[in-house]
Amino acid sequence: MAMDAAANLATIAAYVHHAERRDWDAFEELLDEEVVYELPQTRERVRGRSELRRFTAEYPGDWHLELAESYADAQGGVARLDSRMGVGQTDTAIVFFRFDADGLITHVTDWWPEPYEPPQGRGHLADRY
Amino acid sequence: MAMDAAANLATIAAYVHHAERRDWDAFEELLDEEVVYELPQTRERVRGRSELRRFTAEYPGDWHLELAESYADAQGGVARLDSRMGVGQTDTAIVFFRFDADGLITHVTDWWPEPYEPPQGRGHLADRY
Repeated sequence: MAMDAAANLATIAAYVHHAERRDWDAFEELLDEEVVYELPQTRERVRGRSELRRFTAEYPGDWHLELAESYADAQGGVARLDSRMGVGQTDTAIVFFRFDADGLITHVTDWWPEPYEPPQGRGHLADRY
Repeated sequence: MAMDAAANLATIAAYVHHAERRDWDAFEELLDEEVVYELPQTRERVRGRSELRRFTAEYPGDWHLELAESYADAQGGVARLDSRMGVGQTDTAIVFFRFDADGLITHVTDWWPEPYEPPQGRGHLADRY
């Protein structure tokens, strides 16, 4: 059964929800057996359903995820997440997904942008907030 | 006239295309007069159509943008861009958009994730590539 954007949006929401709830059986059911997870900023890669379950379940710290916005089409999608570690600051994660024809997740690409100082020479073009 | 996902995807593609072509008149026509552009990583903000045109047009360097993937619904969307500066490396930009009922861009949020070293303690859970 070919999936559509609405089904893939529901899978994205479930991915976040099950991770936040630490419901690893339900989390794993969303994943293709050969799922590939990548963090391009660190060049880390995890291959396989049970390996991605383990990577996420064992990720250290009292982390919490909340879905801020998401978009999808019939093949892929993206989520912007608010991530909190304990009572600390909120970080932003941006997660891209690819789905197979059955709606299982085949690729996850995580981006974790961090604060930095603006380059010189554009201070006259933008305000700081 | 209310816009739909397809119209907003076309606007996202045009935003990238006109910026790459330095066609600033066409670029400006995509923007609501009160558009707000934000870079959360540097906490920079640009308000207004002509100000965002100027910020983008005067952005220093021989930069080039290519649309890698995009998703949208009737209210918003996101683009992942490959960005090259001269003959240097390719960076990734992730750009979120909000649209008004006429399909004009009201909000642009740019993310520019940079490489970093993975935190300690998860080397046994992921490979490097």
